[in-house]
Amino acid sequence: MEVRERIRSLQEKMKEEKIDYYLIPTADYHNSEYVNEFFKVRQYFSGFTGSNGSLVISRSQAGLWTDGRYFIQAEKELSGSGITLFRMQEEGVPTIEEYLAQNMKEGETLGFDGRVVTASYGKKLEKALKEKHVVIRYEKDVAGSLWKDRPLMPDNPVSVLPESVCGLRTAQKLEQVRERMKEKGCTAHLLAKLDDLMWLFNIRGKDIAYNPVALSYGFFTMNDAWLFLQERAVSDELRQYAEENGITIKNYDEIAEFLGTAAKGKVLLDEANVSYALYRILRDNAEIAADDNPTEKLKAIKNPVELAHMEEVYLKDSVALTKFIYWLKTNIGKIPMNEYSAAMYLDNLRRNVEGFLDLSFPTISGYQENAAMMHYEATETENKELKAEGMLLVDSGGQYMGGTTDVTRTIVLGEISEEVKKHFTLVAVGMLNLTAAKFLHGCTGRNLDILAREPLWNLNIDYKCGTGHGIGYILNVHEGPQNIRWRFTDTMKEAVIEPGMVISNEPGVYKEGSHGIRTENIIVVRNGEKNGDGQFMYFDTLTYVPIDLCGIEPSCMQEREILRLNDYHKAVYEKVSPYLTEEERCWLKEATAPIKNN
Amino acid sequence: MEVRERIRSLQEKMKEEKIDYYLIPTADYHNSEYVNEFFKVRQYFSGFTGSNGSLVISRSQAGLWTDGRYFIQAEKELSGSGITLFRMQEEGVPTIEEYLAQNMKEGETLGFDGRVVTASYGKKLEKALKEKHVVIRYEKDVAGSLWKDRPLMPDNPVSVLPESVCGLRTAQKLEQVRERMKEKGCTAHLLAKLDDLMWLFNIRGKDIAYNPVALSYGFFTMNDAWLFLQERAVSDELRQYAEENGITIKNYDEIAEFLGTAAKGKVLLDEANVSYALYRILRDNAEIAADDNPTEKLKAIKNPVELAHMEEVYLKDSVALTKFIYWLKTNIGKIPMNEYSAAMYLDNLRRNVEGFLDLSFPTISGYQENAAMMHYEATETENKELKAEGMLLVDSGGQYMGGTTDVTRTIVLGEISEEVKKHFTLVAVGMLNLTAAKFLHGCTGRNLDILAREPLWNLNIDYKCGTGHGIGYILNVHEGPQNIRWRFTDTMKEAVIEPGMVISNEPGVYKEGSHGIRTENIIVVRNGEKNGDGQFMYFDTLTYVPIDLCGIEPSCMQEREILRLNDYHKAVYEKVSPYLTEEERCWLKEATAPIKNN
Repeated sequence: MEVRERIRSLQEKMKEEKIDYYLIPTADYHNSEYVNEFFKVRQYFSGFTGSNGSLVISRSQAGLWTDGRYFIQAEKELSGSGITLFRMQEEGVPTIEEYLAQNMKEGETLGFDGRVVTASYGKKLEKALKEKHVVIRYEKDVAGSLWKDRPLMPDNPVSVLPESVCGLRTAQKLEQVRERMKEKGCTAHLLAKLDDLMWLFNIRGKDIAYNPVALSYGFFTMNDAWLFLQERAVSDELRQYAEENGITIKNYDEIAEFLGTAAKGKVLLDEANVSYALYRILRDNAEIAADDNPTEKLKAIKNPVELAHMEEVYLKDSVALTKFIYWLKTNIGKIPMNEYSAAMYLDNLRRNVEGFLDLSFPTISGYQENAAMMHYEATETENKELKAEGMLLVDSGGQYMGGTTDVTRTIVLGEISEEVKKHFTLVAVGMLNLTAAKFLHGCTGRNLDILAREPLWNLNIDYKCGTGHGIGYILNVHEGPQNIRWRFTDTMKEAVIEPGMVISNEPGVYKEGSHGIRTENIIVVRNGEKNGDGQFMYFDTLTYVPIDLCGIEPSCMQEREILRLNDYHKAVYEKVSPYLTEEERCWLKEATAPIKNN
Repeated sequence: MEVRERIRSLQEKMKEEKIDYYLIPTADYHNSEYVNEFFKVRQYFSGFTGSNGSLVISRSQAGLWTDGRYFIQAEKELSGSGITLFRMQEEGVPTIEEYLAQNMKEGETLGFDGRVVTASYGKKLEKALKEKHVVIRYEKDVAGSLWKDRPLMPDNPVSVLPESVCGLRTAQKLEQVRERMKEKGCTAHLLAKLDDLMWLFNIRGKDIAYNPVALSYGFFTMNDAWLFLQERAVSDELRQYAEENGITIKNYDEIAEFLGTAAKGKVLLDEANVSYALYRILRDNAEIAADDNPTEKLKAIKNPVELAHMEEVYLKDSVALTKFIYWLKTNIGKIPMNEYSAAMYLDNLRRNVEGFLDLSFPTISGYQENAAMMHYEATETENKELKAEGMLLVDSGGQYMGGTTDVTRTIVLGEISEEVKKHFTLVAVGMLNLTAAKFLHGCTGRNLDILAREPLWNLNIDYKCGTGHGIGYILNVHEGPQNIRWRFTDTMKEAVIEPGMVISNEPGVYKEGSHGIRTENIIVVRNGEKNGDGQFMYFDTLTYVPIDLCGIEPSCMQEREILRLNDYHKAVYEKVSPYLTEEERCWLKEATAPIKNN
């Protein structure tokens, strides 16, 4: 088997390099959520194709760590490879640090490519292996160097966004970042997070699928700013924009060398996104102030220009999805269709929307029990036929010149049980109740989460994920620092909800082998009344797509909740109907008709 | 003025002792919430009688720090004293540490009695004053030594509670504590928190008003346990109980000396409750493991024997309060009464309850606008006459052999406005909605708080305190670690809500100069269904006292909320009516009659 051969060659190389254990995480040099093909070293050496997993190789053994989403897939893909599967967070399963601390011997050597391990994780490894005096070797990409026919590192051209789209010039944004640096008493700042870099420099790239980002770094002092990009990525337009904004462009590959000489004083960096390799350079040359990227929060609070564009884009996107639902509801059982072909139909509707750039993630189209798998992806060859029964869950979104969208509807295609209807109703209720929240400034998503979850908790049902995440602006569909969830792990950020933030609101019910429901709107945070008790806040909605009334059981709703649904549907009709055909409009009228409690 | 004279004498003494700044906080040696007269040194030197405040004296100046509850009172009481008032948490007002760091000069000396400053605060001072190389002198009670006619240190006799009341023997509880010590890798443990000590040793004292605690310390190793008490506090019964449970009793005053020789290895302690003086001894002699007292959480999770007693006691206490409300409603406008006399009437009803030991705090009885002051206390000489109009807020509780109670009702004595009625209704709704919460194990009070607060936030109204606190068992009416609030300061504890915990649920509306409303029930946490999604939890209610229907506007309530109120009132009638007179019963029937939405 190929994988066995690859591992064997790596073990030989490790022997040569005097490395006892070698770690291959799934990451690029920026700890991006998704990685480009070039960075799939772990997949090459393990055969496991999931998006999250780390491979640990010793001279005689190999283990793969992955999370609950991928246990079944990993078992299948690892079979025959000789690699042991470590099921993360299951009882009795050690973390990688624990495993290494238990298994490595006094004075042994751990190797990894320091560019694909974050500073914070590298420090965690240092701490765990300190007692055993383990030597850490992070300077070489030992595994990657053995990858035959490795894809090229992407270096697609970068485009500059006009101010009419961004609202602020880079020079203005840099000023805001420098203010934060000053507040923290820092003289320099290294930024490695790709979407933050794109936002700050008003540029977009194409180096990661669905995420319009370019491989890059930024380094700032109080007077200078350097942007590191690959040579082929830089156009004349960008050179001119950089010059106008006081930015020096340098080659992406020179970052390490540059930091070795330029980094002095107190350097602000986010250890969760800066690589261990760069961190080590800085540690040796400067004082490190580990803190959040100021850019992350600045970017999360959308400015009025961005918000105005998003409102427009979300309406167009809502129209496309509404048209899709109309098509699906009127054609189901009449023409052949499956999960994949339905997704393709929707993707095509989006492609025809003015300003469309790309999808914001691969459309999730899950029918019946497939919808219970949160990360299900139908393919052209593996998919389920759609019939006039049950429900289809569709989670989708687009990248447009003017915003990134994300929306989920679960569409009832025929008969559903009373129980399923109850679940459907309470998911909608949770979504609408959270949207209706009034709260004081100072609240985080932890305070608000229960508003969406309580209707389901009342039935002893939970969904094992957060309720909402931040949404980028012509950027990643997932961004921080804000999110709505009821508990946080050590590595998650909890942020105060600020006006201008855009957040998803997506409760759900997932019953394995039976059905899955998710209803997702995108909401934007606004300031409400300010009085002696504080600054009150509320949400506005960006998404206007009907919630399938065939799934709604009014007797499971409180009066106020029925009003909320009716008000929402009234707005959907008013906003969307002008963009529909006569037939679609007639259908939408009925699909958004007010319901009554009997 | 007396205070000026006292400060002058302290400043002279400071000069003699070569101390440049002297800090007098309001605390005993155990960081208790309330302090005995002996510990009111700050009051003696400032004239300020509030329960929270710290005095800082330099050679030429004096400043008092207190919080928002006391700004008006402090201004009055400090007038003419020459003491500057520092309004804590107001913009631009430095904390004490900041003030000292700004004002103290290189190498100056700060003095305080190290026994009344916590280890954590002492460390904060050390850190803040490190740059200036300030010398910290904590060994002497410089101010206290100048207090003429200082009250004696209390040393009241300690009583032993029978196992039938406690549910567990001390030896069993010690075993649980030692398990936690082991988990944390500690070989010894110093416990200084008085209520924890009482619970652990199954004893109760009388050294602090309303709090049945005795001045004491505990020190534990894996094999030995020492209890430090004042000589007069120890009875023969206690000596025997101690012996049976493997406890050595030592003299309270010997703790410092004892630790100097006995403390070795890794000592577990809670820096928020151990004094800086003892901390310094331990720091020099042993390794310190700063962590929570394991006893605090063990104590918070009531055992089945404790819970059974509490249910009984809460019913008796509810009966007393219900009788009081009947008396008040039937006599208002007919016989003269005022805030104070009404409180006395209620206190007397409680005194006649079987098992009554004491009040759990001074009864708060606030009429009309006085109810808007959260810490208002009417006295025999200063109080407001009650008339057949507006509302009286009564917050009260008792210490019984079998539990500590706490309950608030706002009682409508006559006409109230539509607005006030709306506030009253939504306070009740918030209280009942939180009681009805279903939630997953892992939630803290931060997750749940919004259920009580949201009805008021919807009106842009907030109450500036937490929604709930833990309740002791024949102990302090406020205890941790659990509480229900939407945000936490650095010094607050946030704890997972565990089955068996007892918590108050007390939303309110406070409109300065107009009205105050609070409705408080005590709830107990129970395990509900456990399934693949986790362990679900819910609350049961301990308090059964009618919520005044004269304040309820059904049109402000959702159907479900009306059901909740009616269900609660049905239970109130069923539980309380057997203990009432015929007239009271007739009244209660009507006071708990189901309401309808018109």
